[in-house]
Amino acid sequence: MQHYNFETSKAFMNLFSIEPSQAGSLDNLTFAVKDNIDVAGYKTSYGSKAWFDANPPAVSHAICVEQLLNAGARCIGKTITDELTYSLAGENYFYGTPINPKVPERIPGGSSSGSASAVACGLVDFAIGTDCAGSTRVPASFCGILGMRPTAFRISESGILPFSPSVSTVGILANEITVLEKVMRVLLCSSHKLAAPVKHIYLLEDAFAIADEEINKALQEKIAQLRDRQDITVSSITLSEIVGEDISLYSCNEEALRVVQSTEIWNALGSWITAFNPEMDPQIRRVLEDVKNIDRSKLNDALYTCERIYTKVSQFTKTGDLFCFPTVPILPLLKGELENIEKGKDFYRRAMAITSFAGAARLPEISIPVTNVRNIPIGLSLAAGHGQDEFLLASVRQLFDGWK
Amino acid sequence: MQHYNFETSKAFMNLFSIEPSQAGSLDNLTFAVKDNIDVAGYKTSYGSKAWFDANPPAVSHAICVEQLLNAGARCIGKTITDELTYSLAGENYFYGTPINPKVPERIPGGSSSGSASAVACGLVDFAIGTDCAGSTRVPASFCGILGMRPTAFRISESGILPFSPSVSTVGILANEITVLEKVMRVLLCSSHKLAAPVKHIYLLEDAFAIADEEINKALQEKIAQLRDRQDITVSSITLSEIVGEDISLYSCNEEALRVVQSTEIWNALGSWITAFNPEMDPQIRRVLEDVKNIDRSKLNDALYTCERIYTKVSQFTKTGDLFCFPTVPILPLLKGELENIEKGKDFYRRAMAITSFAGAARLPEISIPVTNVRNIPIGLSLAAGHGQDEFLLASVRQLFDGWK
Repeated sequence: MQHYNFETSKAFMNLFSIEPSQAGSLDNLTFAVKDNIDVAGYKTSYGSKAWFDANPPAVSHAICVEQLLNAGARCIGKTITDELTYSLAGENYFYGTPINPKVPERIPGGSSSGSASAVACGLVDFAIGTDCAGSTRVPASFCGILGMRPTAFRISESGILPFSPSVSTVGILANEITVLEKVMRVLLCSSHKLAAPVKHIYLLEDAFAIADEEINKALQEKIAQLRDRQDITVSSITLSEIVGEDISLYSCNEEALRVVQSTEIWNALGSWITAFNPEMDPQIRRVLEDVKNIDRSKLNDALYTCERIYTKVSQFTKTGDLFCFPTVPILPLLKGELENIEKGKDFYRRAMAITSFAGAARLPEISIPVTNVRNIPIGLSLAAGHGQDEFLLASVRQLFDGWK
Repeated sequence: MQHYNFETSKAFMNLFSIEPSQAGSLDNLTFAVKDNIDVAGYKTSYGSKAWFDANPPAVSHAICVEQLLNAGARCIGKTITDELTYSLAGENYFYGTPINPKVPERIPGGSSSGSASAVACGLVDFAIGTDCAGSTRVPASFCGILGMRPTAFRISESGILPFSPSVSTVGILANEITVLEKVMRVLLCSSHKLAAPVKHIYLLEDAFAIADEEINKALQEKIAQLRDRQDITVSSITLSEIVGEDISLYSCNEEALRVVQSTEIWNALGSWITAFNPEMDPQIRRVLEDVKNIDRSKLNDALYTCERIYTKVSQFTKTGDLFCFPTVPILPLLKGELENIEKGKDFYRRAMAITSFAGAARLPEISIPVTNVRNIPIGLSLAAGHGQDEFLLASVRQLFDGWK
């Protein structure tokens, strides 16, 4: 892997050094912050030049930033985000495309593109991102690093620009599971109880069915290693079997979570876009038209479906259970490839079907860089029951240490 | 009670009629919306003239408004909120003081002042408010109506101006428990399972100890009726006994929840206030200085304490359990009385100690207008376990029908 520095990584909006306010469990660790999250003294761009120009600098740190500084970590910069965080690609019209150091001709994934790039380039120990429909998980998978979306609502969203409050979470990107675990314990205010061992891994069949053949083939080799273990049961399951009704991952996304997200995103952005007609990437403007035109009379059904999926998955999940599936169903695309509208539609339709599982069921999920195809990284995801973030982190350590 | 109309109630910012988008369980019900919540086509003032002037109109309804219109309810106006929702009083410097129809010389309570007034005056079937440190519960108690703060995060905050995302909730005010229950079932996406009967009522001793003698005396008569029931156990308990460590309600507020709220509120408002120096009520400006100057190095300890209280209260609470306490420890004050700084401090210190219980433990709470002192309304609160909103609503019906 070629070496990239702070400049050549193209990951950063600003570089600075904010010292920890206290010593703590994160002493000597450095981190970067996605630029939809407030750092005192800096403008928060939201990945949009127009937004940057229209808004004053932040006077205080977002809660998650404050927590990390209070625990001993040092903040060294802000990282590029996709425009208005509305993309999974990582190609920003105004601020460029952060490097994916393992495959520089390919996209880093987004919208936490700069955070993933900074970690993958080894420029920080960890970085904060956010995740609504995969904005931490997808760039983690594409850049070959760890990325965690925690249980919804466990980490404060205060000081983060509102996007989809029912679905969005803070996310963390890191190279080392020990770092990810330390950081998450601070953000989640974890107590020190021991986590249970992994007992049962459910392979989410629908997700494997959506993924490309070469991805499944590479992942199956890793899954075979799990099947060999005496202490863990590995079996396949479908979303319909978990929820007890006929439902596909595509429906989970398109008829439920996606409707909620779209309605909320237009609530967050619509008034500003309508009143000020800001300069935007024409591609982002086009896809935001879908959000604007979503049929809001379908909102109640969508919310009921999400609530039902959450409840049923919660009832299904026992202590020691994990779900396992490919994080993204296709390899990271070549830069510029998503300008092809059909290719973009296919990518988003399939990727968001898979990311909607943890989204609708409100599960914590970690993408783990377990393997690659032709030296292109592939992430495997583990998800645990709602609120079982500490168990999930411990299980990645339990299972992942052996794989590396 | 004197009759007040839409004008003389002084409860409304705007009057209009937005028809339901579909028929549903809320057919023929009318509602009003607190003016920190978006209604398409109208500016959202946040109770501040400066905010109103600085921001464009909303282009879409907040999620909670959309849910109600999709379920058959008709929206008839927006109601006055305290400035930046930062008050429990209900006296707005720019937009006036909505009438408390049962005691017109006294304050209605805030910050959902107009929503409480509109319901108490009988001008709508229900109204939407919000609640962070009591902004739905306090005006419900003062105006002698029902007010519910649901479990944190169960209702989307999308389309509501950000305040304290970890703590704030949508709240509902109503005169009739059947209306409150119908509305909440829509907003919470409740399924139709039957709720358990009430088994045990824990009287929260610390809260009664904070309340004025005349309030406790009036409430004890009502509680005596509960003690007479054969099917329910009534006993006293302290926060320390529930949580298993030495902690007062004052500490729960001042060292934990209040620190989180203050930090988050400055994240929400600080940049705007600092950059634009907007015109503000001098009293609100003064109290916001405390929020600005909060010691943010204490945030992590405060978050850990909140998390511990939430976890311990969750572990303590069994099926059929309720907590019971006075909603507000003092009678609604006379208009203008809070200009006395010492009186204000005493009111907020005691009121917020009690409201911090459901806030930190993330419990649903309903204030019920069970009695009065010298014709001044007093609310009694019931709180249920985290996520047990449907049980709480059913128990109010079970216990409250007999009292009325």
